[in-house]
Amino acid sequence: MINDIEPYVAGEQPKQGQKVIKLNTNENPYPPTPKVKEALEQFDLSTLRLYPDTNSTDVIKAAAAFDGVSEENIFCGNGSDEVLAIAFQTFFEKKALTGLPVLMPDYSYSFYPVFSEFYDIRRQTIALKEDFRLDPDDYIGVPNCGIVFANPNAPTSRAIAVADCARIAAANPDSVVIVDEAYVAFEENYESAVTLINEYKNVCVIRTLSKAFSLAGIRLGYAVGSPELIEGLKRARDSFNSYPVDRLAQKVAEAALLDKAYYDETRSKIIATRAAFAKELEELGFTMPPSSANFVFAKPPVDCGTLYQNLRNKGILVRYFNKPVLKDYLRITIGTDEEMAQLLDAIKEEVKNAENSADCKTDKRD
Amino acid sequence: MINDIEPYVAGEQPKQGQKVIKLNTNENPYPPTPKVKEALEQFDLSTLRLYPDTNSTDVIKAAAAFDGVSEENIFCGNGSDEVLAIAFQTFFEKKALTGLPVLMPDYSYSFYPVFSEFYDIRRQTIALKEDFRLDPDDYIGVPNCGIVFANPNAPTSRAIAVADCARIAAANPDSVVIVDEAYVAFEENYESAVTLINEYKNVCVIRTLSKAFSLAGIRLGYAVGSPELIEGLKRARDSFNSYPVDRLAQKVAEAALLDKAYYDETRSKIIATRAAFAKELEELGFTMPPSSANFVFAKPPVDCGTLYQNLRNKGILVRYFNKPVLKDYLRITIGTDEEMAQLLDAIKEEVKNAENSADCKTDKRD
Repeated sequence: MINDIEPYVAGEQPKQGQKVIKLNTNENPYPPTPKVKEALEQFDLSTLRLYPDTNSTDVIKAAAAFDGVSEENIFCGNGSDEVLAIAFQTFFEKKALTGLPVLMPDYSYSFYPVFSEFYDIRRQTIALKEDFRLDPDDYIGVPNCGIVFANPNAPTSRAIAVADCARIAAANPDSVVIVDEAYVAFEENYESAVTLINEYKNVCVIRTLSKAFSLAGIRLGYAVGSPELIEGLKRARDSFNSYPVDRLAQKVAEAALLDKAYYDETRSKIIATRAAFAKELEELGFTMPPSSANFVFAKPPVDCGTLYQNLRNKGILVRYFNKPVLKDYLRITIGTDEEMAQLLDAIKEEVKNAENSADCKTDKRD
Repeated sequence: MINDIEPYVAGEQPKQGQKVIKLNTNENPYPPTPKVKEALEQFDLSTLRLYPDTNSTDVIKAAAAFDGVSEENIFCGNGSDEVLAIAFQTFFEKKALTGLPVLMPDYSYSFYPVFSEFYDIRRQTIALKEDFRLDPDDYIGVPNCGIVFANPNAPTSRAIAVADCARIAAANPDSVVIVDEAYVAFEENYESAVTLINEYKNVCVIRTLSKAFSLAGIRLGYAVGSPELIEGLKRARDSFNSYPVDRLAQKVAEAALLDKAYYDETRSKIIATRAAFAKELEELGFTMPPSSANFVFAKPPVDCGTLYQNLRNKGILVRYFNKPVLKDYLRITIGTDEEMAQLLDAIKEEVKNAENSADCKTDKRD
């Protein structure tokens, strides 16, 4: 069977019938706005016989209103992954022919290296500081064909100020700077690099509805940038890609973008849960960089791989990267208060067991 | 404005408020099965917060049942265009490095050349016969890195027998033969190359739900082939593309595939309408190859470009290709009986006017 030889993706597919607390893929624990239900009830299903609007006009209108920009500043695609892929192709591929690399942080979204390989774009990874801080100075004076980073970054959860994004853009006027804001909504008064697009024609902000809008299931992302950048993305898409966003996804996305009150309510809950959860983790001896995302990147006081596996055995899925440096940390998605309480109980038990076990060993050695 | 500089696609975007008869993009005139409505009503919208099943398992189950094959014979994507793109990459790209071309008919789906250019695959177009017949012998003994054709072909509407597909596959054992069956459903007792996949491990059949299932709006296509081919497609997708089919589209597609009775009812209506419409066209002096698709490819007894434009002015959109050879033909989608009656009235008027105008000219010359 084909399925047997596919690589196993940790925690992505909980076993059927198994009750699992799923905190491993940074999904939103809350459902999308009730407006989505209304929108679907009003949707005329007979129109599904017709091809979708290639340009996702209604989504673009809603996104423009949401972000306070013009419709000509927005490009819409099947999830931010597709938008990112088209952006790599449009902004980096040609310039990369000169041999110049795309710059990206050494720890960031794992699809950036995949896209650069797919488009044959050389990449140069820039080390984050020891506390996982991205230092804008590291992106200044380094020849490149483009720059991409997530802000807040993943899996590290840290954000840089929009003023720092501006500095990077100003220092690289001949490159497009992609700021991937998948997790931007998870600070009470967050800043977005969208505010830079009029002054910096080379800033392209990538957004997704998967996280803050609770719509990972529909695959909707968009880019915000100067009309010149957006025009480039459209041209690239139209020259190759004829897979527009489907009609139902467009309808659902529009409804979600128009309900800013629900968006604010949901992200506030997640921010509050994160603060309480991080505090508890720290009391248990975990350390972590300050999180601006809907997850924390936390180093346990016990062996990380063992903790991951034991939580997994208890039906709690978090994310573990078995790679240098990252292997000492767990990336834990912020769920509901109830889910985090159950996770904390399990963690406390694990930490206690590990301490007891260490005591035993110490006893034996003495 | 960006939108102003986009190339105009004939008839794709009828003006708002204008009542238009849209027979230009081979959409189905009938709505999708009522089972789609039921499926959406039962769908738990709160699950939209979660990423979709990457593998579209439920759709694959339904498609396997529909086509009488195993689940390991099916690969599912965002419309047959995406599946075709991944198939070009998987089956042709590497072998094309040797310089061998992909073979395709000179008149066929216009995205085949686009995909071959995108993946840097040299192509060799094989001329259709004068009556737009594809001759299998033309695909035998020609060195190639792969073969792709639509069956029935577009825009020509003609089909070849599955036995002829088998001959092409047998004569090219080292190449994958892609048989794009977007329009296969539109013969009462149609044959599908799906029946070949056990004997010919190099046959990859591409299907879409856009036409016969009235679901162009959701973008759902799939490939049917040997487990080896399907595994290759999955590997290519997983190595780059993280845009699975969204949850709503999966639900809708599953419901449609499970309602074979509705599928048969809809395609029978279209087949009957086509027969009556083609007969009337022939009586008006049109000529056309025999159609096995949900459109006819018809040569009018009057100037084709003028007829196209005049129909357009009357609010009836058909497809006109302003290219050598094709420019003498209109590709007309089969709509409802009412739509075809209105189109016929308009055509009769145009033919009459053209005859009168020709008579006048003759009078003047005499």
